[in-house]
Amino acid sequence: MSIEKIDEQIKKVKKASEKISCANSEEKSRFLDNLAKLLDKNRKKIIEENRIDIEQGRKTLSKAKIDRLMINDERISKIIESVETIKKIEDPVGRIESGKRLPNGLILIKKRIPIGLILIIYESRPNVTIDAASLSLKAGNGVILKGGKEAINTNRILAKLLKEALSLAQIDENAVYFVDTTSRKATEKLLKMDNLIDLVIPRGGSSLIKYVSENSRIPVVKHDKGLCHIYVDSFANLTMAKKIVYNAKVSRPGVCNAIETLLVHSDIVEKFLPEMARELISAGVRLIGCEKTARIIDIKPADEDDWFTEYLDLTLSIKIVESIEEAIEHINYYGSHHSDGIVTDNFSNATKFTDMVDSAAVYVNASTRFTDGGEFGMGAEIGISTNRLHARGPMGADELTTYKYILIGNGQIRN
Amino acid sequence: MSIEKIDEQIKKVKKASEKISCANSEEKSRFLDNLAKLLDKNRKKIIEENRIDIEQGRKTLSKAKIDRLMINDERISKIIESVETIKKIEDPVGRIESGKRLPNGLILIKKRIPIGLILIIYESRPNVTIDAASLSLKAGNGVILKGGKEAINTNRILAKLLKEALSLAQIDENAVYFVDTTSRKATEKLLKMDNLIDLVIPRGGSSLIKYVSENSRIPVVKHDKGLCHIYVDSFANLTMAKKIVYNAKVSRPGVCNAIETLLVHSDIVEKFLPEMARELISAGVRLIGCEKTARIIDIKPADEDDWFTEYLDLTLSIKIVESIEEAIEHINYYGSHHSDGIVTDNFSNATKFTDMVDSAAVYVNASTRFTDGGEFGMGAEIGISTNRLHARGPMGADELTTYKYILIGNGQIRN
Repeated sequence: MSIEKIDEQIKKVKKASEKISCANSEEKSRFLDNLAKLLDKNRKKIIEENRIDIEQGRKTLSKAKIDRLMINDERISKIIESVETIKKIEDPVGRIESGKRLPNGLILIKKRIPIGLILIIYESRPNVTIDAASLSLKAGNGVILKGGKEAINTNRILAKLLKEALSLAQIDENAVYFVDTTSRKATEKLLKMDNLIDLVIPRGGSSLIKYVSENSRIPVVKHDKGLCHIYVDSFANLTMAKKIVYNAKVSRPGVCNAIETLLVHSDIVEKFLPEMARELISAGVRLIGCEKTARIIDIKPADEDDWFTEYLDLTLSIKIVESIEEAIEHINYYGSHHSDGIVTDNFSNATKFTDMVDSAAVYVNASTRFTDGGEFGMGAEIGISTNRLHARGPMGADELTTYKYILIGNGQIRN
Repeated sequence: MSIEKIDEQIKKVKKASEKISCANSEEKSRFLDNLAKLLDKNRKKIIEENRIDIEQGRKTLSKAKIDRLMINDERISKIIESVETIKKIEDPVGRIESGKRLPNGLILIKKRIPIGLILIIYESRPNVTIDAASLSLKAGNGVILKGGKEAINTNRILAKLLKEALSLAQIDENAVYFVDTTSRKATEKLLKMDNLIDLVIPRGGSSLIKYVSENSRIPVVKHDKGLCHIYVDSFANLTMAKKIVYNAKVSRPGVCNAIETLLVHSDIVEKFLPEMARELISAGVRLIGCEKTARIIDIKPADEDDWFTEYLDLTLSIKIVESIEEAIEHINYYGSHHSDGIVTDNFSNATKFTDMVDSAAVYVNASTRFTDGGEFGMGAEIGISTNRLHARGPMGADELTTYKYILIGNGQIRN
């Protein structure tokens, strides 16, 4: 693709996005049906293209990255499943949010409509290509896909299948545009096209998020880091607390809703921490912590930077606090306002925590791992927004729409 | 104020905004009560300070600008009225938007909360100082006010009264911060404080909007221009059409929901346009138009730029179109997606128009002049958003909030 011509290309995509904004649910379901079938039929080809990416990646990428990049039969089945789930969720487009008659007789209707044209910039995992595109298209949006350079061959064939599935459903295939280059210049140019593109969603590491936030003229909904906490209160059921902390740290340490920091009230530290630490260590967790923690269990000291760090790994920093207020202050200062929880049986403390902790999802007596569009009953998610505006927390099809007001009169004029 | 110290100041405002986010409606009502009383008690002082601004303005400002800047007894009464209206509207903070029990027993609650700290950058009209601050504070937000340099003396005393009214209601007066400088450096610095400020609302001319959009790292909700249209369809009731067009153009040409362009279907041009033109001309409207229009009535030709121009004045551009599709295309291409209307008695055309015109407010058989928070039943508005994300069209107290999810469990962990 020549970057010079990208303007013309994006204008075409915009036109197609205007058309798909009017497509009805049946047409969009047909597209998703076709897509599931095409993915199934092309398993071999997809895996072949993915092999090329993997071969090239072996020279430069870490094992973890290779794993994220890799597609096999089982993963294709998972992608197909997710397309089928997206097919089943309710189409938000056209939903009347509210309606009333104004005193002058005008009928005022607030109606959900697609956002328009969405640019998704993401890193190595190629399943995002299908997930993000399917959900955006389901919500009636055109979508521009700019994936990681490591996955270009896999993404190319997936994008081809997306277009084929659209065509078969008689929807303009230009509603999907795959940025078929590994150059950053394309991204730079796209981020200035605020006259054509309505929203950018960056998904990936913090350097990508930072780059997009600082260079975009288009509104950005960030899917930034999850620096999550659990605070074990002095009134906690300690058996429950252990189960929850263990789950929030160990079940899947590489995801954004896993915890990075454990806060423990000083009153229960002796009863709680040594046993908790043993369990975590036996699960392979590396523990670091504050000075007070170091006096009770054998750990390395944590420095100021640690409290700001999303490890995405089996590392947990531990801090002993003297009060719930200190815990809340720590969370609001060092956290990323993603998902944070308290374990307590004290009603006032539970209420104080949910009122004062400024996070997208605040938990009482449950693992933070539930912050997820699927778990929240959205059916599917495009990611978890760390923005305060437009959408906060898991973003499903609803969050990929906006609204318009329609006013029906019979000659009303304003004095 | 020294710009160097602005960081520290804004940190204080952030702290205060966290406190006001928890203030209950009664406390906020007391603040608004106090404010109304203080405004009434200080009429003389406010007018005196305003005189200083007016005197200084006479050298450089246009008559229209002087008028916008001017405050008199009547205008103070209007400001007080608006404070009283804001007091009466429902407090959106704490409202449960939805709630359900998930299959695993977790209770999921979606709750409205304040956005946080809002920066409002505006131009000469000093009533915005009170309007915007009152509404932001009602919705539990801290607010930073950066007004136009022409109004600095008026704004300074109004900001002082805001702080006094907060103090009297036992709310931290730092929840309002008045940027007491006419230098642009302060604005520049503020727009980079994305760690402290959650939202910027620029209200003013297009150069201000452009400056803020291009320089802000903080999310922006633009209150940009209103380039509105009315399309008179071939199936229009022409008597109604004349009343609506006249009202939409003449009743208040300087506001954003007034029309700039009239589109007329060619079938009814002869019956409609000459008489419509006579009425508009007799109201002092300057008409320009396309070639076809010029063949029917005596007008100056409009060039490409005219279709993009928001006159905010008694000027109207007229275009004759061959079809409703041509009208819709013109509106979506040249318009500002603000408020656009059709006059028709044809059901399919009305539906096509409301479906296809991509504007915040789309009208059938009514004047576009109704796009306004008060008219829409929001009680008051901070302005009219031309964004697609977060809020579209009139923004009231609800649109100055966001949400958080609260999850209540009894030990749930995720597999």
